[in-house]
Amino acid sequence: MIRALAFALLFAVSGVSAQTLPSWNEGKAKSAIVAFVKTVTDKKSKDYVAPAERIAVFDNDGTLWSEQPLYFQLAFALDRVKVLAPQHPEWKTQEPFAALLRGDLKTALAGGEKALLEIVMATHAGTTTEEFEKVVRDWISTAKHPKTGRRYIEMVYQPMIDLLRYLRANGFKTYIVSGGGIEFMRPWVEQVYGIPPEQVVGSTIKTKFEMRDGKPTIARLPELDFIDDKEGKPVAINRFIGRRPLLAFGNSDGDLQMLQWTAAGSGLRLMGIVHHDDARREFAYDRESHVGRLDKALDEAKARNWIVVSMKSDWKRVFPFER
Amino acid sequence: MIRALAFALLFAVSGVSAQTLPSWNEGKAKSAIVAFVKTVTDKKSKDYVAPAERIAVFDNDGTLWSEQPLYFQLAFALDRVKVLAPQHPEWKTQEPFAALLRGDLKTALAGGEKALLEIVMATHAGTTTEEFEKVVRDWISTAKHPKTGRRYIEMVYQPMIDLLRYLRANGFKTYIVSGGGIEFMRPWVEQVYGIPPEQVVGSTIKTKFEMRDGKPTIARLPELDFIDDKEGKPVAINRFIGRRPLLAFGNSDGDLQMLQWTAAGSGLRLMGIVHHDDARREFAYDRESHVGRLDKALDEAKARNWIVVSMKSDWKRVFPFER
Repeated sequence: MIRALAFALLFAVSGVSAQTLPSWNEGKAKSAIVAFVKTVTDKKSKDYVAPAERIAVFDNDGTLWSEQPLYFQLAFALDRVKVLAPQHPEWKTQEPFAALLRGDLKTALAGGEKALLEIVMATHAGTTTEEFEKVVRDWISTAKHPKTGRRYIEMVYQPMIDLLRYLRANGFKTYIVSGGGIEFMRPWVEQVYGIPPEQVVGSTIKTKFEMRDGKPTIARLPELDFIDDKEGKPVAINRFIGRRPLLAFGNSDGDLQMLQWTAAGSGLRLMGIVHHDDARREFAYDRESHVGRLDKALDEAKARNWIVVSMKSDWKRVFPFER
Repeated sequence: MIRALAFALLFAVSGVSAQTLPSWNEGKAKSAIVAFVKTVTDKKSKDYVAPAERIAVFDNDGTLWSEQPLYFQLAFALDRVKVLAPQHPEWKTQEPFAALLRGDLKTALAGGEKALLEIVMATHAGTTTEEFEKVVRDWISTAKHPKTGRRYIEMVYQPMIDLLRYLRANGFKTYIVSGGGIEFMRPWVEQVYGIPPEQVVGSTIKTKFEMRDGKPTIARLPELDFIDDKEGKPVAINRFIGRRPLLAFGNSDGDLQMLQWTAAGSGLRLMGIVHHDDARREFAYDRESHVGRLDKALDEAKARNWIVVSMKSDWKRVFPFER
């Protein structure tokens, strides 16, 4: 009898509140998310939305996983330069590769966008899609973050994983809409976020279908196809999904247009920004940062009452590996 | 008692066979499809495929709906030229529009690809995505086929709708991968085929996100972005879906590379071609046709034992409106 009572009490205590978004602290952000989801899934509400229309989009870098001290995909590219160097003796004297191989990142990146593009093309093109997938899988399962020593896929935000799960449990279809490369994300996001490859939207290089020894292959070409950032995000959402999102989360000015596009839909919508204000558990940066600058979008979020998530106060923990 | 027996008999007769693909005649094509689906969904089979990997792709023109005497999207464009003519007095003397407005399709299309592109751009660009969606909805709900007098959305193949349903009931995710325009298809394919907008892959023109009077819009620009035909189909499948299909259906040489890409996957795959050999109920054409030419793909299908569906003998009925 007493055990039954204890069990009942335990059940009551660990009820809705603890089950819903368990890594979030009680507060304005969590309440707003839960209230929104309850409303749009309530058939009696005037803001009810049918399951098919429940599209939720998430930026990746800085929104679902970390992006400091440099975009993780750039870390991948830099590691890849080292792996490929023996096949490219000319890199010993050719910038930006020469500087990179000396370990001088600053000089290498001083060439700006042109240098960056050269690094990306040298490391992301020239393979088939299947070969590239294997390269990404190998890297992501072994490479480690320079500050935490953790594998990059461990540096994902547990509260955002909670949110993705909570939304899916409420009939939402969750998408990534990222400036990162589609084929850099697809090999691991299903396992880590529960987001399948067909729900990943991102930047692309051109590819070409061709027969190689009678075998159909898709070759990755050293040419940009589409940059899924800023104005590109609503364009890609329209192209890939063809529905306006009901909910959008980002963390930087690169996400502003996606948030605006979402907000301009009819009825209730939820727009959220992850604010990096936790130097102790993660990183603290916003208006002055080179990576993930959050300036205009922060002003607009405040002016329009979008949710601004404080990593410091809204999140019980940041990473899955924290106790 | 007799009624119960009659009911039981009726139930037995109308059992599996009649319920599965009801508009298909018993025969090689239907048997091959059913055997394939049973195998890949059977957990005990060595060819079992998890539901997440059950991607099925379908061409649209000539595979899910008719494409004669001209692609229905071209019929839309021609109607649209007439609607827009009052806003374009210059068209009275400017080809290919002048010929079109005189009703002389042959002269208008004599300009080949260039003329066609001009017609498409004049009729598909220059609006926002929302305006264009409304234009398509209005047209598709009223315009009628020149030969049958039926609305175009009635000229869909009932056996293919059966097949889409059967696949979805078996855990497949069904996609359209068409040379047609994504935004020409999305407004009506969900209602007609049960395929949601986010599972439509097609050709695109460029679009641009911009603020108009403070309202975010996506403008459709008169510039080609991507032609989802031939080599473009596997490229688009890779870009949009990121998984290799388990099953692919087409009807013309424009689908050959999609079928080859599907066939080159590991394990069991199903490749099918709809062969237009029924002049009485639909149209009969293949190697010599300008629209939907089926030549190389027919040879390859026969050589590789892909399913070639005879509309004449494999389909109990073609259109939903038939008795």
